[in-house]
Amino acid sequence: MLIQEMTRGDSLSLLKSMRLGRLACAKDAQPYITPFYFSFAGNYLYSFSTVGQRIDWMRENPLVCVETDEVMSSQEWVSIIIFGSYQELTDTAEWERERAIAHELLQHHPDWWEPGYVKTTIDGRDRPLDPVYFRIEITETTGHRATANGGGDQLG
Amino acid sequence: MLIQEMTRGDSLSLLKSMRLGRLACAKDAQPYITPFYFSFAGNYLYSFSTVGQRIDWMRENPLVCVETDEVMSSQEWVSIIIFGSYQELTDTAEWERERAIAHELLQHHPDWWEPGYVKTTIDGRDRPLDPVYFRIEITETTGHRATANGGGDQLG
Repeated sequence: MLIQEMTRGDSLSLLKSMRLGRLACAKDAQPYITPFYFSFAGNYLYSFSTVGQRIDWMRENPLVCVETDEVMSSQEWVSIIIFGSYQELTDTAEWERERAIAHELLQHHPDWWEPGYVKTTIDGRDRPLDPVYFRIEITETTGHRATANGGGDQLG
Repeated sequence: MLIQEMTRGDSLSLLKSMRLGRLACAKDAQPYITPFYFSFAGNYLYSFSTVGQRIDWMRENPLVCVETDEVMSSQEWVSIIIFGSYQELTDTAEWERERAIAHELLQHHPDWWEPGYVKTTIDGRDRPLDPVYFRIEITETTGHRATANGGGDQLG
């Protein structure tokens, strides 16, 4: 097996086809990961959530990390890691254009809205449905690809 | 779709069958995620890595978060989130027993050793092969299960 670092161009190309990732934020040195769906455009990952712990934490500390991967086996996988910062697309004139972009991107995936906007019952209590649009501004991207035979470096 | 919080017992049962997770550490408010393979036993996730950024960061700040999931679709998934702390199983008398446990658990998955111990070429330079055993001591576990029809709560 050979693990190779991907070029930034290859990482960004692959990112366009990725939808599911894991988003980490941190509060007082304690990291926190949650799965999330995103849509990559420009230099941003656009997404959507209800308020909750991760939104609370990102509002307080915007530094985040996103990981997305395709794992075929322990010997064949690609993994992209992004450092970035959280930007909330508030329902104000300032963010009107960005909210429109987010809405446009996210409406191509109507099923995504459900996890972020579904009526959720936790411990018999309904979770509040306060939609939050946000995007992650990418500051650094690194990608790695593992190949079983060490050959091939093309993106499928 | 219904998202339900799993009991701690159900989460731990499911964790036994999980192998691939994402591990987040943090340095100076910047979180960092990497994929990793683990084996759950007792109150610990055992794993193995070469030295590098994540080991450096966890040595400095042992607070970590692990996320592992099975995503069948955007409407059917389970996700387990663990808060815990990094413990390095150094090659000393103090950790001899724990290293034996880790070795026993990890040798059931010989292919896992490759990602952590493979000759890796990054930018034409070979990555150093310094094996590090570690475990994550679990301090908190939460699990959520989404079901498309809102029915069923059993673990398969």
